[in-house]
Amino acid sequence: MSLDQFSIIESTLREGEQFVNAFFSPTQKIQIAQMLDDFGVEYIEVTSPLASPQSRKDCEMIAAMGLNAKVLTHVRCNLEDAKVAVECGVDGVDVVIGTSSYLRDFSHGKSIDEIIDLSRDVFEYLKDQNVETRFSTEDSLRSDPEDIFRLYEAVNAQGIDRVGIADTVGIGNPRQIYELVSNLRQRVDTDIEFHGHNDTGCAIANAFAALEAGATHVDTSVLGIGERNGITALGGLVARLYAEDAQYVAKYNLPLLIKLDKTVARMVGVDIPFNNYITGFSAFTHKAGIHAKAVLNNPSTYEILKPEDFGLTRYIHIAHRLTGWNAVKDRAEQLNLTLSDEEIKHITHQIKQLSDEAMLTLDVVDTLLLNAHNGKNGNDVVTQQTAEQEA
Amino acid sequence: MSLDQFSIIESTLREGEQFVNAFFSPTQKIQIAQMLDDFGVEYIEVTSPLASPQSRKDCEMIAAMGLNAKVLTHVRCNLEDAKVAVECGVDGVDVVIGTSSYLRDFSHGKSIDEIIDLSRDVFEYLKDQNVETRFSTEDSLRSDPEDIFRLYEAVNAQGIDRVGIADTVGIGNPRQIYELVSNLRQRVDTDIEFHGHNDTGCAIANAFAALEAGATHVDTSVLGIGERNGITALGGLVARLYAEDAQYVAKYNLPLLIKLDKTVARMVGVDIPFNNYITGFSAFTHKAGIHAKAVLNNPSTYEILKPEDFGLTRYIHIAHRLTGWNAVKDRAEQLNLTLSDEEIKHITHQIKQLSDEAMLTLDVVDTLLLNAHNGKNGNDVVTQQTAEQEA
Repeated sequence: MSLDQFSIIESTLREGEQFVNAFFSPTQKIQIAQMLDDFGVEYIEVTSPLASPQSRKDCEMIAAMGLNAKVLTHVRCNLEDAKVAVECGVDGVDVVIGTSSYLRDFSHGKSIDEIIDLSRDVFEYLKDQNVETRFSTEDSLRSDPEDIFRLYEAVNAQGIDRVGIADTVGIGNPRQIYELVSNLRQRVDTDIEFHGHNDTGCAIANAFAALEAGATHVDTSVLGIGERNGITALGGLVARLYAEDAQYVAKYNLPLLIKLDKTVARMVGVDIPFNNYITGFSAFTHKAGIHAKAVLNNPSTYEILKPEDFGLTRYIHIAHRLTGWNAVKDRAEQLNLTLSDEEIKHITHQIKQLSDEAMLTLDVVDTLLLNAHNGKNGNDVVTQQTAEQEA
Repeated sequence: MSLDQFSIIESTLREGEQFVNAFFSPTQKIQIAQMLDDFGVEYIEVTSPLASPQSRKDCEMIAAMGLNAKVLTHVRCNLEDAKVAVECGVDGVDVVIGTSSYLRDFSHGKSIDEIIDLSRDVFEYLKDQNVETRFSTEDSLRSDPEDIFRLYEAVNAQGIDRVGIADTVGIGNPRQIYELVSNLRQRVDTDIEFHGHNDTGCAIANAFAALEAGATHVDTSVLGIGERNGITALGGLVARLYAEDAQYVAKYNLPLLIKLDKTVARMVGVDIPFNNYITGFSAFTHKAGIHAKAVLNNPSTYEILKPEDFGLTRYIHIAHRLTGWNAVKDRAEQLNLTLSDEEIKHITHQIKQLSDEAMLTLDVVDTLLLNAHNGKNGNDVVTQQTAEQEA
């Protein structure tokens, strides 16, 4: 278990660029890299300098920013690509090749022995250049595990820093990932990186399972953007680790998460999903009466993430038919109104009846509470409002 | 493993109503229930008839629809609530109570022995009424497992149909869920239901782990709507099971999923998340050149879900700097343009250069291809367009 010493390889500027809507200008890339560095991620991965002329300039530019995070780029397994990567001044080079029969048959056509031969030259060169080196198979979950282990034992013997398990197609489930990474952990003494796509909603759980099994590095992107529906979301991984033990993510500047999510969402023209981890608009709302009552007594009853640790606030929604009188009473106290429990229960009944007809606003609830308070004190709301207007 | 005989308890009309934005009119409830029934879910769970006067009428109304799905409602553990539920004509009653120290101390204040006593009367009554019965603890993951097992052994002895593990606060991880459900499986011979919240992005993986461990029923809602950021999404669970074996979900009408997601999203005033499982707009888009090339050869290379099984289509995005010449060639063929590989590679280079400057549209790519084709044949695009206008 490496939960207390893992690193995040933040790939918004590589995998994230593969999201259908993504086009990052150089200025935007600098902004994203700086925010990620301020957040505290250990690595920032950028698009291959071989992708286009500007991609190369951008790679050189990010590498020259002097960030605390190490800058990596991501290239195919050949010497020419590796040389260009090194020329860009990055701290490390992530080399990738497909090992599943799908990718060997329908993409590059190489055998495992050919891949081993190819990688030998590439890593000999990279080691001479003193850059951090990683080798990852693509589509590792549909590869023969023995192929992967054989390949990684070969590069381990060459002194590579890190090997990767990539669930490129999002097919893995947590128990499979746990088993594969556990077995790999027995076969190599390098660091182990996990990269997982989210096609079946397991990217966060799979990354967590990989860490439990001995992985040391996890790939993320802001909001999870990437090919198809994306990969492990930075905020989602943080939520998962925080729930296990807030200390695991105490090294990051958590209140920056909402700024990262909002900024990247705007850049790629999407909204933050309504149900996003931590930063979705409903993440800290409580509605059912029984939930609201308990949260008012002690937020931990229904909240495992403290919103204030992320610079956010909770919201207790009371203007609806699932409401309960304890939450309504709390609202009356917020408004400094003195009402008996019987009065509060009567108003709660009124709220349920009114909200059976249509969606209510908090204003209506407040008016009911004010009316009851003022009626008791010989005033009514209309009188009070008139007085305010006259004042 | 009950992957080939599990049931979905679809709770959009109960848990989903606890989503902050949700207010379903009677007409909308009928529409949702009918669509879920057409989709083929085995159970539909509706809000407690005790919540409000209209909630009771709605419960009676859904129970009287004559659906193939069994209709359940969800009540607190007391005799009065159970009687009202039965009076509504439902097929089954889901009884719930908190067992974690958090909920016992800050919510209802009852001990485990008091809960066992209370449940005895409730289930004696429900069994006499010949309705399907379920008992679930709330916040099961922060409860003492021995408390849960003792409680469930007691209701098992009474002949209850189903017991539930509920991760009410979204704290569970897949390995914990697997262990808890596996242990419970040894202690009772009832059905086992799993209900999981998504605060740390594990609701789908946890539901799947529960099924692997012997659970028989999973709670879902459309788009996962519910308290806070919600629960296991119907579409997400379907994606996970389909990826394991499409036969597991062959009993459902999968092309209805997009209609369900769109309809419920509109009713609660949210957009389908951009990165939603199956129905998010980017779920079947491919962008990087290496992905596009392989998918054009064989979609299984980077797709584990077949879009056509869900009434959807894939999209290969080529107008960007990560594009590759194989995908550009495929586009030329779609347009019936005859260009050599060298010409295609030259145009791919042009696309990369142009898209380094700004986001490109497919129109620009098509124009480059048409220009090259027409130029070779002694025409140019302008001439052709003029000819079209004159025709």
